[in-house]
Amino acid sequence: MKSIKILAPATVANIVCGFDILGLALNHPQDEMEMRCIDKPIITIHHTDDFNLPLVPEQNVAGAALLALINEYPNKNIGFELIINKIIKPGSGLGSSAASSAGAVAGANYLLNNYFGKTDLIRFAMNGEKVASGVKHADNIAPCIYGGVTLVRSTSNLDIIPLTAPPMYVTVVHPQIEVKTSDARQILRKEVLLKDAIQQWGNIAGLVAGFLQNDYELISRSLEDVIIEPIRSILIPGFDEIKKQCKEVGVIGGGISGSGPSVFMFSKDETTANLAEQIMKAIYNKIGINYYTYVTTINKDGVKITDC
Amino acid sequence: MKSIKILAPATVANIVCGFDILGLALNHPQDEMEMRCIDKPIITIHHTDDFNLPLVPEQNVAGAALLALINEYPNKNIGFELIINKIIKPGSGLGSSAASSAGAVAGANYLLNNYFGKTDLIRFAMNGEKVASGVKHADNIAPCIYGGVTLVRSTSNLDIIPLTAPPMYVTVVHPQIEVKTSDARQILRKEVLLKDAIQQWGNIAGLVAGFLQNDYELISRSLEDVIIEPIRSILIPGFDEIKKQCKEVGVIGGGISGSGPSVFMFSKDETTANLAEQIMKAIYNKIGINYYTYVTTINKDGVKITDC
Repeated sequence: MKSIKILAPATVANIVCGFDILGLALNHPQDEMEMRCIDKPIITIHHTDDFNLPLVPEQNVAGAALLALINEYPNKNIGFELIINKIIKPGSGLGSSAASSAGAVAGANYLLNNYFGKTDLIRFAMNGEKVASGVKHADNIAPCIYGGVTLVRSTSNLDIIPLTAPPMYVTVVHPQIEVKTSDARQILRKEVLLKDAIQQWGNIAGLVAGFLQNDYELISRSLEDVIIEPIRSILIPGFDEIKKQCKEVGVIGGGISGSGPSVFMFSKDETTANLAEQIMKAIYNKIGINYYTYVTTINKDGVKITDC
Repeated sequence: MKSIKILAPATVANIVCGFDILGLALNHPQDEMEMRCIDKPIITIHHTDDFNLPLVPEQNVAGAALLALINEYPNKNIGFELIINKIIKPGSGLGSSAASSAGAVAGANYLLNNYFGKTDLIRFAMNGEKVASGVKHADNIAPCIYGGVTLVRSTSNLDIIPLTAPPMYVTVVHPQIEVKTSDARQILRKEVLLKDAIQQWGNIAGLVAGFLQNDYELISRSLEDVIIEPIRSILIPGFDEIKKQCKEVGVIGGGISGSGPSVFMFSKDETTANLAEQIMKAIYNKIGINYYTYVTTINKDGVKITDC
């Protein structure tokens, strides 16, 4: 049976004010996978990377997503062999688990002649997120599958809205500290002040309007989070300084990527994006924390599949 | 000195899920005013309607708005004579106070050769809202001045974003019961569950995207309020039944207008809008509450001024 190669992009969830509903895909980094369909009800997963991720399908994010897909496929005599080379580091806040699960189900669907729709794939892949963080969220999976910027209007009655956005550079720094998604969720308050919620949904509405109207100034003013960032940013050394210095050199805005620890900044041009990278490097060099940086753009296509 | 005539439209604030940030103007009803500028620092207000509104400028919403405008105008030797015929009933939830204050400052600015910008006018008119309800909110004033649908991204650093929207009919019923804006605010909880806030901002993002992308289906799915409506609708007899029956005949969606008691429904066509009106009439006839109904469209122009 034929083999395919899969590229699954990193994603930035939340986009500052859109906690649990907004996300976007990046052109770099991307996970690499190889996959083939077999006529036995077995899933085998092999990792060529060094992250020691679980290989039992139920415990592996890609495996859990594939099990959900197979469960709804009429022919029960199918299985998949999957080789994953994770480039997106687990725990980076760049949608590593989403890339594995979204890449796996998108690849499987390609091998099954696109039997399922995109919303189905997101639904299956959410089982991978459940394995990774205990919560079936879709804000990384949706942009990973659709590409571009996506809105998850509803998770319970899954409703994904792809949004257009003007061209932007994205500078990302991934400081090598551990912030578990489950921990980053637990420190959030269960209740928020109504007045803060109103300010937040004003910004979310502004950000969506800014994306759709190609209004960089409006995007910039709307990239403000009064609910999640003040709490989560405590877990990320250097965060306030990165934001302050990047604003000074003219970035559009930015904040925590997903639940962190990665931090991202939007820029209109490559020069500013590179300046933001230099700032991030200088700050973590000074603090003495190792890091990776990426200067990239918004990925318009989502998971990419090619025949071997 | 020259006299002008002013038409100031009714407005629907919140638009279901956008509490305190979204609003739209209606073509019907509209307040009527006549105004002239005088060279004495005096504001005189005369009401030709029967609502017994206060005539002392500091206590009258139009007066308070004009005082704020005069306060920032360099020539202190100016004043205004204003005759107001309120067509929009105070306490209807249709932006009656906003029409008075926005109409007055827009008229004054016309007489002062547009010395001020629109954002200034909104800022001045918010003083009228303070008189009316104790809170300087802009979600009725902004659409009254701009027309169409508006987003108040921020009230503290006033940031108004006009939004395009597809053509829609608006059916409104104003049951003759009293719901004071200040009471309708006080019954709200000061804190909301984060999970409800997330659902709400998913809907707000969806509604803004639906407006800008002319997507009636998305608008319909997004017209859901899990925070304010469940509490405020208790004050409006027949609310749930209106919503249920209107949905059955195919309205796009709707809810409480501002803080109520008026209820509005969007429709794609006039036939459905008229059906919604019949439903509203039948329900209040059965309950035995007097009412006014309006079948109208979105007003694109805001306050309209003509020379006498």
